[in-house]
Amino acid sequence: MLRTLFLAALLIIAPLSHAADPARPDPLSSWNDTAPKKAIVAFVEKVTKEGSPDFVPSVDRIATFDNDGTLWCEQPLYVQGVFALDRVKELAPQHPEWKEKEPFKFILEGNIKAALAGGNHALLELIAATHSGMSVNDFEKIVSLWLESARHPRFKQPYTQCIYVPMVELAAYLRANGFKTYIVSGGGVEFMRPWTEQAYGIPSEQVVGSRGKTKFELRDTGPVLMKLPEVDFIDDGPGKPIGINASIGRRPLMAFGNSDGDLEMLQWATMNPAPAGPRLGLIVHHTDAVREYAYDRDSHIGKLDKALDEAPKQGWIVVDMKNDWKQIFPFASPPPEPSK
Amino acid sequence: MLRTLFLAALLIIAPLSHAADPARPDPLSSWNDTAPKKAIVAFVEKVTKEGSPDFVPSVDRIATFDNDGTLWCEQPLYVQGVFALDRVKELAPQHPEWKEKEPFKFILEGNIKAALAGGNHALLELIAATHSGMSVNDFEKIVSLWLESARHPRFKQPYTQCIYVPMVELAAYLRANGFKTYIVSGGGVEFMRPWTEQAYGIPSEQVVGSRGKTKFELRDTGPVLMKLPEVDFIDDGPGKPIGINASIGRRPLMAFGNSDGDLEMLQWATMNPAPAGPRLGLIVHHTDAVREYAYDRDSHIGKLDKALDEAPKQGWIVVDMKNDWKQIFPFASPPPEPSK
Repeated sequence: MLRTLFLAALLIIAPLSHAADPARPDPLSSWNDTAPKKAIVAFVEKVTKEGSPDFVPSVDRIATFDNDGTLWCEQPLYVQGVFALDRVKELAPQHPEWKEKEPFKFILEGNIKAALAGGNHALLELIAATHSGMSVNDFEKIVSLWLESARHPRFKQPYTQCIYVPMVELAAYLRANGFKTYIVSGGGVEFMRPWTEQAYGIPSEQVVGSRGKTKFELRDTGPVLMKLPEVDFIDDGPGKPIGINASIGRRPLMAFGNSDGDLEMLQWATMNPAPAGPRLGLIVHHTDAVREYAYDRDSHIGKLDKALDEAPKQGWIVVDMKNDWKQIFPFASPPPEPSK
Repeated sequence: MLRTLFLAALLIIAPLSHAADPARPDPLSSWNDTAPKKAIVAFVEKVTKEGSPDFVPSVDRIATFDNDGTLWCEQPLYVQGVFALDRVKELAPQHPEWKEKEPFKFILEGNIKAALAGGNHALLELIAATHSGMSVNDFEKIVSLWLESARHPRFKQPYTQCIYVPMVELAAYLRANGFKTYIVSGGGVEFMRPWTEQAYGIPSEQVVGSRGKTKFELRDTGPVLMKLPEVDFIDDGPGKPIGINASIGRRPLMAFGNSDGDLEMLQWATMNPAPAGPRLGLIVHHTDAVREYAYDRDSHIGKLDKALDEAPKQGWIVVDMKNDWKQIFPFASPPPEPSK
């Protein structure tokens, strides 16, 4: 009976241990067989192969993903920005003073360009006004409800469908290989958590992002955390390694971004002083104006300039969306962008 | 052959599916069979039983543990406090001005009571002076090195041996039942991370604590995060639910503490407004002066007063260390405390 069991076990285990088995579905099937896919697979095989000099134990297999422009579409405006603008319109009846006050008056007049011309100060005022004054639980409900009805202006799809299939596949492939996948985003952590698990398979405790301050209150109905109109932490640029250190406490083995806001995260993950070891950095380069958007050095959103210059020096993979991705979105062939 | 396989599988699986199997080792063997152990086991069985009205999916099984006085001994002084005092002595030659400056001069004179009489202000100065000016990586090495040689003054053991076996067992038991176990401590997150995985099986990314600010610097030798002498976040009292929300983003299903600093965490975890559901709060009550220390309402360290009053009202379990724990430490029978 032992021999029978042994043979039966072999039958069950064999397909799992042959990576090149033609019958096994390709976990990265939406990627073309170009250099980026080959480099990713080679890296994962090398760090997961026990006994190899590059083997990394599962506990240290941390992969961090930027969100806007890396996991989902950030054009023509950050999704959280669209949410904030919609909130201003919804809250306007309670704020008659906004009719005279920048940046709110511009938003209510439909002049988004003028509203955003106020730069960071205007943006922070906008976020403070629309992201505070409620409990964290109520905010989660507001976000979920908004996502149900909001649609991307070009693709006419819910924003949680405007996600990059190749990157979602990549995250799942890494988890299947013992990685913990994290989001490390400049976006608000409480704006992302209600939907990242369903969209990407990344649970709330593995989402690192910007956040406002909160205040604990014990009410008759129970304890609540109220969202205050004060910035607590901006998880962007040099804030990304700081956020990774505060929340994860390990350097990532792999990091994925698409803009200069990811430069320091890529440096922190890959330019590792001793002990040296295998590291992988990757930049999603938006090169496909037909299926998505084409932008880099001059874009107001997702500007990719310094990090693009740094990529060849540091050996970071640059994904050319047009040539390296077979499929971009879960929905079929989006219409081409209207000419401007 | 199928039947053979089926029977063989049953032989393998059966011991796992019979919780009451006498041959199965008790996962909480250092607990006496008193009310707390029974309540914990009943709770875990109820929330993990599929189809039961109290079933909680694995993704929501979050358990948060305070550290000082809940997972390891905090008497006669917080371990991190002892570390800071030792650091002052070690760094004194580089700081001749400390000979004239409080609280440092008192520490160097061996008058710890006078040093700590300065209250929070003195403590923050002490932490700032001893926990900043180095990279987070270098700080981790300093902590690890210190723990190798430091010994508990009464138990003559490394501090990482002065941990409570019943709580370490409890954390392992919860993980075996699909829980994610977190530390949520007033202690410094970077002070805890170098050793929590080995001591408790809790990896660095599941440690939430107080922290100082850090600064990202790109040096010739690579990127570093420098520790600055500024408090970023105090994870104590109302800070605990705030830290849980910032780092985990879910309410704990179970929370474990031992002092008034854990009150708001226990409230946040258990006094849940709708949707209601099963919740468990537990307080470790230090009642064993012979094997450990006996203290509560009047203690300067780990004061347990309000939370002890609140426990019966909220249905929180109060563990009587003397009567509910068969064993306390991994080492055998510590000597009784010297009379004062």
